[in-house]
Amino acid sequence: MNERPRPLDGIMDITPYKGGESKLDHDHMLKLSSNESPFGCSPAARETALAALTEPQLYPDGGHQALREAIAHAYGLHDAHVVCGAGSDEIISFAIKGFCPPGSEVIHTKHAFAMYKIYAMGAGARPVSVDETNFCAKVDDILDAVNSNTKAVFLANPNNPTGTWLPASEIQRLADELPTNILLVLDGAYGEYLEAEENFDPGHKLAMERPNVVATGTCSKVHGLGGLRVGWGVASADIISVMNRIRGPFNVSSVGLAAAEAAILDTKWWRNAVQKTNKLKQEFVAFLNQQQIQHIPSAGNFVTLLLEDAQASQNLDQHLRRDGIITRSVASYHIPQGLRVSIGDHAGMERVQESIKDWAAS
Amino acid sequence: MNERPRPLDGIMDITPYKGGESKLDHDHMLKLSSNESPFGCSPAARETALAALTEPQLYPDGGHQALREAIAHAYGLHDAHVVCGAGSDEIISFAIKGFCPPGSEVIHTKHAFAMYKIYAMGAGARPVSVDETNFCAKVDDILDAVNSNTKAVFLANPNNPTGTWLPASEIQRLADELPTNILLVLDGAYGEYLEAEENFDPGHKLAMERPNVVATGTCSKVHGLGGLRVGWGVASADIISVMNRIRGPFNVSSVGLAAAEAAILDTKWWRNAVQKTNKLKQEFVAFLNQQQIQHIPSAGNFVTLLLEDAQASQNLDQHLRRDGIITRSVASYHIPQGLRVSIGDHAGMERVQESIKDWAAS
Repeated sequence: MNERPRPLDGIMDITPYKGGESKLDHDHMLKLSSNESPFGCSPAARETALAALTEPQLYPDGGHQALREAIAHAYGLHDAHVVCGAGSDEIISFAIKGFCPPGSEVIHTKHAFAMYKIYAMGAGARPVSVDETNFCAKVDDILDAVNSNTKAVFLANPNNPTGTWLPASEIQRLADELPTNILLVLDGAYGEYLEAEENFDPGHKLAMERPNVVATGTCSKVHGLGGLRVGWGVASADIISVMNRIRGPFNVSSVGLAAAEAAILDTKWWRNAVQKTNKLKQEFVAFLNQQQIQHIPSAGNFVTLLLEDAQASQNLDQHLRRDGIITRSVASYHIPQGLRVSIGDHAGMERVQESIKDWAAS
Repeated sequence: MNERPRPLDGIMDITPYKGGESKLDHDHMLKLSSNESPFGCSPAARETALAALTEPQLYPDGGHQALREAIAHAYGLHDAHVVCGAGSDEIISFAIKGFCPPGSEVIHTKHAFAMYKIYAMGAGARPVSVDETNFCAKVDDILDAVNSNTKAVFLANPNNPTGTWLPASEIQRLADELPTNILLVLDGAYGEYLEAEENFDPGHKLAMERPNVVATGTCSKVHGLGGLRVGWGVASADIISVMNRIRGPFNVSSVGLAAAEAAILDTKWWRNAVQKTNKLKQEFVAFLNQQQIQHIPSAGNFVTLLLEDAQASQNLDQHLRRDGIITRSVASYHIPQGLRVSIGDHAGMERVQESIKDWAAS
């Protein structure tokens, strides 16, 4: 017998996810490639994280009770409808592992977050890509792709790497028209940046009330805890019950639990970070308009520039790197002419603008 | 349509894992229920963990390069054969997700770590329990249970909650006689406590050389980082490649990576913790013999007492709780008369012995 263990069908076709690059040979590197908040985390979060390191040998609370209560309190939810993960991408993986058997279909849109496809393939399911219009998902096109083999629909709102979003009425319509045996996962990683917008619905209420809707959130963006791996999902009791059966008993670290709880409860701090980021984004967009550089209107903490073509995008990328600035090519997201720039702090954005100005003038 | 999303077969039959209890109404609680090291972690590990909290917003290194090198250095491995997880139980989940499709069979032994069964059921696979002899796994009985539907065999060496172990020759024989298309996962969570024993083989060499063997390790035991969720797997390049395709891109936190790297490289510190623990265990065993209390000979940082019957085990558990000491009933591990006591520090073990003495005399 010289046979080897055989992986599930589909796994070896996966191209593993590549995060934003974080290294560059430059004395004063500026990382704007991963949508990390330049403002770090709430001071309260840092303090509780430090305190949690007093007894690093103790296992975390596997029930995540205090964190679930904090999430429920800050976002107007019931803690029994909340499940926590190592980043919201772990919640996405639970949705697929729990409900999408090998051979089933998982719908995402063309420029969606890469992990929907990767986790689907990892489970032996078939990812189905639905076209977007002007880089924005369309509800009718999603509904058209549904068939009897469909087990889940993933939609980020706002979406990464485009920053486009669907209004409350369209989210409602999608939830209403999708067959109720199909999971609808509303990925809210960037939802806080749109919180003040009247026409935005993070889907929390839908998720608590409907048996087939999951809304996700993360501490990796405006809460400034990307390094600690904490996210959450909101869903019906039945879905939560499934996810709790497939998740690891200690999937979130003790330090992550403590920091996330404090960060989320410090709503004043993170709402202030949202405002600062949105203001810096507006200024950057005004600059791009002035420079006549096309870009996708974005509701996230990033803007994707649309250059003339793939070559121009690569040129700008190289130019920025020479100035010590790392941004993110979105060629792998089917936008070869795109270059995504995360919103940094004031000094960082001035530096980016100077570098782009130089490039445009050259 | 009033249908709901349907979970994969088997998931709703799972009884979720219950960690050791950590709360008790007592002023001076002593937790000996989760095999946590009473010595905490290396001071170097704590320092690097604190430093990693300086920029909590930055994503961790998704390739785990520095940690993989540290593991390779300390355990005599090659870093290309190492994959990291959120605790070694995540590596166990990768082995199942990657290689055990719905309907396949996964072998474990009767008193094995509960997560083998839970993850198998979560993937829709069928866990197959093989009897043990005197609380110890037997290679021939494992081999007898193999059939054409078997995809993986899980064996903890030493095992939790029994503490029993198989000598190097038996591990070699199991690896030799198991068909090569079946994954053999050697769970080494407690391997460091046996490192000095000549006849012990953690399976690292087998895992690096054979296409179907995985050896796992964890920072949750002697390295004292149970709260930070860091473990690893050692395997052939092909298996590592599968696991890297199904794992989350940032499955280990930045703080966990930093602390684990320092903890593992501080071999002097953790080998000293092994020695202290083994000495305290010997003293505890001598005490149990003196008291004529049966127990399973254990190579881990815990001892499972075998009382007269389930009632006696519950009585002792209650007595210890009244004295503020939490240990672990192993009734759910098919040992109703068993009570597992993690080895605490010197003061803790004196307290346990006093309480047991009181109970025995009453």
